[in-house]
Amino acid sequence: MSSIINLINDKITANEPFYSLEFFPPRTEDGTVNLYSRIDRFAVQQCPPLFVDVTWSAGGATTKPKGPNPTPGIVRQVQEFCCLTTNMHLTCNVASKDQIREILKYAKNNNIRNILALRGDPPTLQTELSDDFVHGVDLVRFIRQEFGDYFCISVAGYPYGHPDCAIDTDNLLHLKEKVDAGADFIVSQLFFHAEDFLKWVQDCRAVGITCPILPGILPIQGYASLRNMNKMSGVGVPESIIKEVEPIKDDDAAIKEFGVKVATEMCQKLLAAGTPGLHFYTLNQEVVTLRILRNLNFWKKTVIREFPWKRPPGEKRRKEEVRPIYWSNRSKSYVARTEDWDDYPNGRWGDSSTPAFGDLTDYHIFLHQNRDKPEEKKKMWGNPVTVEDISSVFVSFLEGKIKELPWITTEISTETKRIKQDLLDLNKAGYWTINSQPAVNGAPSSDMEVGWGPSGGLVYQKAYLEFFCSPERITPLLKILEKYGKRFNYQFINLQGDYHTNLENAMAVTWGIFPGKQVVQPTIVDPVSFKVWKDEALCLWISKWASIYSDGSPSKELITKIYNSYYLVNIVDNNFIEKEIIFDILKEVINN
Amino acid sequence: MSSIINLINDKITANEPFYSLEFFPPRTEDGTVNLYSRIDRFAVQQCPPLFVDVTWSAGGATTKPKGPNPTPGIVRQVQEFCCLTTNMHLTCNVASKDQIREILKYAKNNNIRNILALRGDPPTLQTELSDDFVHGVDLVRFIRQEFGDYFCISVAGYPYGHPDCAIDTDNLLHLKEKVDAGADFIVSQLFFHAEDFLKWVQDCRAVGITCPILPGILPIQGYASLRNMNKMSGVGVPESIIKEVEPIKDDDAAIKEFGVKVATEMCQKLLAAGTPGLHFYTLNQEVVTLRILRNLNFWKKTVIREFPWKRPPGEKRRKEEVRPIYWSNRSKSYVARTEDWDDYPNGRWGDSSTPAFGDLTDYHIFLHQNRDKPEEKKKMWGNPVTVEDISSVFVSFLEGKIKELPWITTEISTETKRIKQDLLDLNKAGYWTINSQPAVNGAPSSDMEVGWGPSGGLVYQKAYLEFFCSPERITPLLKILEKYGKRFNYQFINLQGDYHTNLENAMAVTWGIFPGKQVVQPTIVDPVSFKVWKDEALCLWISKWASIYSDGSPSKELITKIYNSYYLVNIVDNNFIEKEIIFDILKEVINN
Repeated sequence: MSSIINLINDKITANEPFYSLEFFPPRTEDGTVNLYSRIDRFAVQQCPPLFVDVTWSAGGATTKPKGPNPTPGIVRQVQEFCCLTTNMHLTCNVASKDQIREILKYAKNNNIRNILALRGDPPTLQTELSDDFVHGVDLVRFIRQEFGDYFCISVAGYPYGHPDCAIDTDNLLHLKEKVDAGADFIVSQLFFHAEDFLKWVQDCRAVGITCPILPGILPIQGYASLRNMNKMSGVGVPESIIKEVEPIKDDDAAIKEFGVKVATEMCQKLLAAGTPGLHFYTLNQEVVTLRILRNLNFWKKTVIREFPWKRPPGEKRRKEEVRPIYWSNRSKSYVARTEDWDDYPNGRWGDSSTPAFGDLTDYHIFLHQNRDKPEEKKKMWGNPVTVEDISSVFVSFLEGKIKELPWITTEISTETKRIKQDLLDLNKAGYWTINSQPAVNGAPSSDMEVGWGPSGGLVYQKAYLEFFCSPERITPLLKILEKYGKRFNYQFINLQGDYHTNLENAMAVTWGIFPGKQVVQPTIVDPVSFKVWKDEALCLWISKWASIYSDGSPSKELITKIYNSYYLVNIVDNNFIEKEIIFDILKEVINN
Repeated sequence: MSSIINLINDKITANEPFYSLEFFPPRTEDGTVNLYSRIDRFAVQQCPPLFVDVTWSAGGATTKPKGPNPTPGIVRQVQEFCCLTTNMHLTCNVASKDQIREILKYAKNNNIRNILALRGDPPTLQTELSDDFVHGVDLVRFIRQEFGDYFCISVAGYPYGHPDCAIDTDNLLHLKEKVDAGADFIVSQLFFHAEDFLKWVQDCRAVGITCPILPGILPIQGYASLRNMNKMSGVGVPESIIKEVEPIKDDDAAIKEFGVKVATEMCQKLLAAGTPGLHFYTLNQEVVTLRILRNLNFWKKTVIREFPWKRPPGEKRRKEEVRPIYWSNRSKSYVARTEDWDDYPNGRWGDSSTPAFGDLTDYHIFLHQNRDKPEEKKKMWGNPVTVEDISSVFVSFLEGKIKELPWITTEISTETKRIKQDLLDLNKAGYWTINSQPAVNGAPSSDMEVGWGPSGGLVYQKAYLEFFCSPERITPLLKILEKYGKRFNYQFINLQGDYHTNLENAMAVTWGIFPGKQVVQPTIVDPVSFKVWKDEALCLWISKWASIYSDGSPSKELITKIYNSYYLVNIVDNNFIEKEIIFDILKEVINN
């Protein structure tokens, strides 16, 4: 994965402000699942965080991470499935050198490349301090000695002085010592006024600290969070803030409102003063931070998408350049299936592509699918007894009335909105669409809706449509498609493997032309992975939908029948210059 | 290389008539060099021959082929450098099984896949007949026994009966025996009337011969060739023909005219009767055959180019899909340099491309460059003493007044004609252009000028320009180009290796979008092979041009100075949507 200091320096060079987020490992498995969803909602924003911190757990979580502590496991999942760069906290005051070495080895083997090196809180009575590490600087030195330049190391800075260090100058010199020992950047503890931070940065510069320093922002999220502020600041919350909050302490919404206002103003001052980026202590909440980021216009920046899909930050997938379109609404499943692949892109998707797709174990750990609540789903999907009822569910999803389908858990994309009316017509008529893209004939790579890749390029798409289709419609549909010769490439398959296609090899459906580069073709349609996807897509009828109804119920029987008889169909319109005609063709079969 | 029977069957299925040509190994080295040029002129036609026969040499040639006889060596060169599918004749009546086996092994190792199996002429007094092979059918059987299905085997058929076989029916049964033994198709000996051939084909069908039968056409090319006809037909030239030729026997042009007329009419009848293709006995001449083919409209067919460049027919290069643009006017040199490569396309031109280019030994054998005649070249290129004189040579080439330049031995392409006036302006101003392509924004793949690839696709190009440039213009030119940012990718390099570029990796300059396929990007510009090409391109100033003048002459000194100081420059315009502006930019430097 990327070294954060490189990402920060790139942003500084480009003069683009950024933000990062900090979370802590929840104590329960449910909490961990919820945390993933919350982080993922940030990840899919137009302007995702530059990196995400996960604090070092003091223990007690009930998830089953692969490391000796929940933190490394969470960090790994966030990298793999939220596709975000992480910063793993690590404390050393109760650990031996051997223990720390093992943790760092695990980190290295799992593409974790960024460490926030901390001494750690004073131990409770039950634990003993280690002799191996006394100060944070000892950990920084140890990491550099043992792992050279592999890790990007960050350290904490204390604008109001460290609780254990009475004299401010000593405090600054300790920080400089950590930087000299190899720290790449500094994240500050919380502060209450922009001026406090900016003054402290000046002091840091005065003693010769030259690396980037990020301000740590702890927004007031409720009355209870003031307690955290007291603890973390080391100096107590200023009287002025307490005075403002006191009168509204029972009005949660008002406090949040106040927190957003205060933090927004502080962030604006910091950015105006040239601060390169903002680090938010989220306390595992999202609403307040999201609102502050919106106020700061982080969401209105140009989309910067390397590819139409998102690549996990790991070094391993650095060369990944091609994906089948099928998983575009279930990209975490695709990442999980291809986790063990090591040759991207051509080894897998070239002439002799023989992809071996792995199972979904890790993915299931991440999503905890079994924890789906049947009642919530019934609220969305009802108790369908006819295929018309099923059509209504698909239509409601497109209309935004229900939040997800078994195949799609994210909002429909802006580009899908372009063809929404056509999709509505089809779904009403019983073509249940689960994936689509409109044709694009050379849009700028910076286009907000369909752009991706470096600037100065042009991107293209062939229209693609994927849907479930009743067996009765297969023959007439095939007959019409064949009339059009090479205009369309199609694949029809059912559970039993009855397969109709005119596609022999992988074909590109999204590609881009850029200065100084070969043609990039990040999304393909291919017969090999389609068969893997078919199993997954059909299985979701049962595992996600039929399973919420009791055995013998009409809904379960209906869905099982669909699972057993319907075809999964996809169609590519090779004419990306003129208006797409897939929709008209499908309607032709309805009308006949 | 392709099996001819597959090519023939494809043509029959597509209902597209084709033609093939037969040549014999010349007796001298000069003659062989000329033969290559002659075959190559057919090869670069819009509609090249489906295959080329090379007859089995009776020995006596002075070239140095790698096989035991000049024929296999010539066949190999025609395949590699003219990029044509060949049919190698092989006679057996004076050879042992061991000898034939060795020849066939050599053929197989050199991608020669098609054999015309013949008994051979009766031996002269000096040679002894072999006991191993008595009839042609013995050779067919031997090839199938020893090499299974590897070779496509053709055999000769005799519309007027075999000279050694008095009874017509026996003659047909012998032919059927050869087909039953494994022959894939039949080429007829010459005949004088279309009706004779068509009747004979009916006879063949009547005895159960079902494979394709091609008519062998021997046009009358001169009075002397009538003798050949007598010998080859086995029945003597009909009185009617002799009567027509006799009065004009001293007028070579008139005889040729007559030959073209007679053969054209005969071919038209054959094609009208459903004959799939025509096989021409060229007697190593080209003019008459070319004229007949033009009369038959073979040149007016749609261009069928698999790629913008031509791939040698060998199995080895079957996966070749990418070439650097630099060698587009010297593709034989590129083929020679990359002869030993075995992984096309991505292994060589992917991210980690480290092409190892071979030397040009074989290529030099093919072209016999040392045999260039200095006097002919001086006639074209004069005795330049100023750079303006050099400019005039380049301008004359563009105007079609001289036939070749050291870097370009073929006619300028139709697509170059689109930008001819701009090129003229540049060359007059001392930018000596040696390669260029205009921008193309989605032309049909069937386009006569710029099309390539399967039907139903769209092809694209970025404008490309390559030229020699005086050292004084480098700095101002670079300055202007940098102003345009990513619009242009450029490379400047001189003999000493002073290199200026904004290109880091291979980039595509020609690509195509097709139904059911990944994006094909057959032509690239890249920094790695550019350095190899630079050596070749600069060296041609000396080896092809300076070398024709005596030491100490002003011309030799001028060209040597250019060789030592000028830059080889190429520029890609990344904007292929709007009008190309490379020319305007270069003119800006002239005007300053």
